[in-house]
Amino acid sequence: MKKAVNLKEELALFEEHWSPKIVGEYNGNEVMVVKFKGEYPFHSHADTDDFFLVLEGRMTMELRDRKIEVGPGELFIVPKGVEHRPVAEEEVKVLLIEPKGEPNSGDSTERAPAVKEWI
Amino acid sequence: MKKAVNLKEELALFEEHWSPKIVGEYNGNEVMVVKFKGEYPFHSHADTDDFFLVLEGRMTMELRDRKIEVGPGELFIVPKGVEHRPVAEEEVKVLLIEPKGEPNSGDSTERAPAVKEWI
Repeated sequence: MKKAVNLKEELALFEEHWSPKIVGEYNGNEVMVVKFKGEYPFHSHADTDDFFLVLEGRMTMELRDRKIEVGPGELFIVPKGVEHRPVAEEEVKVLLIEPKGEPNSGDSTERAPAVKEWI
Repeated sequence: MKKAVNLKEELALFEEHWSPKIVGEYNGNEVMVVKFKGEYPFHSHADTDDFFLVLEGRMTMELRDRKIEVGPGELFIVPKGVEHRPVAEEEVKVLLIEPKGEPNSGDSTERAPAVKEWI
């Protein structure tokens, strides 16, 4: 990292939804920016927590037994093994952290994992 | 985590500088909010990267060979083993991630580590 990463600038470089872009690495984890719109299938990650920080917009993190509203500047960490799906009526911009190589789709059979690439 | 953590609300609960407050855990790492003002001694963390995301304000991350300006919405991850010190002329509010138990002062002999507590 030669200089600080401006998350808003990185987010302006792409438009696709559900396609995390890597902006940094922290101890073997990929730090990513991603845009969500619509709903993603329920899935879980057996071996890792899943870190979501909303940068702009709003989303609902649906768990099987409750729904968590997550607005700008709000953080929600899904514990490992817990089924979840992000739902966003309007586009939401998110900072996402997952271990390197972890499929963003977890154990979902409905959705193939995105190819996570550096931006 | 019963609901999303609003980082601004958490930051409003304390005033001390250089005293990280834990707001979440991600795979054995502590996710913290912290306020910096002034300068911290140079130090490094032998076994971990050090994650800084500026939420409000500005800081300079000084390395031995260069200075990194980090403004709001900007991320800088100090690689493990790299000497660094955050410097902030005015108060800056930061999201910090370090492994559980890692002293925020790293190998510094000038500064005792802060007691990291949940807020």
